Amino acid sequence: MSIRGLYVIIDPDACGGRDPVDVARQALAGGASIIQWRDKRREKGVQLADARALGKLCKEYGALYIVNDHVDLALAVAADGVHVGQGDLPADVVRGLVPDSFVIGASTNNVDEARAAEVAGASYIAVGSMFPTASKEPERTRAATPERLREVKAVVDVPVVGIGGIDASTISEVLAAGADAVAVISAVCGAEDPKAAAEALVAAFN
Amino acid sequence: MSIRGLYVIIDPDACGGRDPVDVARQALAGGASIIQWRDKRREKGVQLADARALGKLCKEYGALYIVNDHVDLALAVAADGVHVGQGDLPADVVRGLVPDSFVIGASTNNVDEARAAEVAGASYIAVGSMFPTASKEPERTRAATPERLREVKAVVDVPVVGIGGIDASTISEVLAAGADAVAVISAVCGAEDPKAAAEALVAAFN
Repeated sequence: MSIRGLYVIIDPDACGGRDPVDVARQALAGGASIIQWRDKRREKGVQLADARALGKLCKEYGALYIVNDHVDLALAVAADGVHVGQGDLPADVVRGLVPDSFVIGASTNNVDEARAAEVAGASYIAVGSMFPTASKEPERTRAATPERLREVKAVVDVPVVGIGGIDASTISEVLAAGADAVAVISAVCGAEDPKAAAEALVAAFN
Repeated sequence: MSIRGLYVIIDPDACGGRDPVDVARQALAGGASIIQWRDKRREKGVQLADARALGKLCKEYGALYIVNDHVDLALAVAADGVHVGQGDLPADVVRGLVPDSFVIGASTNNVDEARAAEVAGASYIAVGSMFPTASKEPERTRAATPERLREVKAVVDVPVVGIGGIDASTISEVLAAGADAVAVISAVCGAEDPKAAAEALVAAFN
């Protein structure tokens, strides 16, 4: 499974009170090729049922399944990989805890962070934030721009994922900058019709 | 290494601005036989240096080293075990992620939770909170009493650890109820002289 196409981050807080598993199903039906489970708020034991359900869904749809931040939760639910931010366990440490085939994604904001993450063993590099976003997380609110993604793409060999405030009106700009995949949260989780929203974003890849 | 004696939880927020690694060294010099690293606030990558330093110290002193909540961090720093609360990954899930020799501790509040944790594979059962504590965590603020610990001790085979608000004036009551080990935070981390505080608590075991 490659890092390519629409990458939908399922954050229960972004789903407007809807069942996050149902939102994920709609995102997959709409063509998402990668799903990330991301819950910054609840304890890991409490997340377990939803995180497992997403894993089953991804298998059904042949999608790649990534868990945010927590290597232990990712392994516990048999995910395909884990995504780590700049404050999480670094990729080289994660690499020592997981099977060789495990995907490790890393959040970066610039060429230096991207190079470091690749050297540390990241399987893909996320660059953000492409556009202003409502999220309060430092990594997502550090501005990057599509031009920055183009610079990163020029210096790393692993796939590059654009993230942060991307929607149907801006996705083409991120793809034109060289993104292999595009990650979204609210553009799908917050959409009235998550399936239609995913379809509109996937159409930009063709 | 057995679960017996003084179990000091090193929480950087409880160390009054002092270096938590230095506080741990004093606790070990004062006779602590188990050290837990517990940081509910900072991201795991940021905790890595301190968590590793505590592991080295514990090896020097022949003490058991436990990491709170996070199996991935515990494995990354080669700890002897992990301690999980009721909202964390359950012991049976943790058991699938760690070597057979790994110690898994579980926070419980009553006989039912204690039995369930033992069946799930916990290596020891913590019971608390023995006495009122300043901590805001639900698990530590749920009252248990030494009498409750006595009930738990009667029904489980693994070692039982008393926790929550224990200090030099109350430790004997917890030991009399059958505790194999006694866990403290502020009684050592918040003491003016952590080594002397540990020594006073260790004396109660003799």
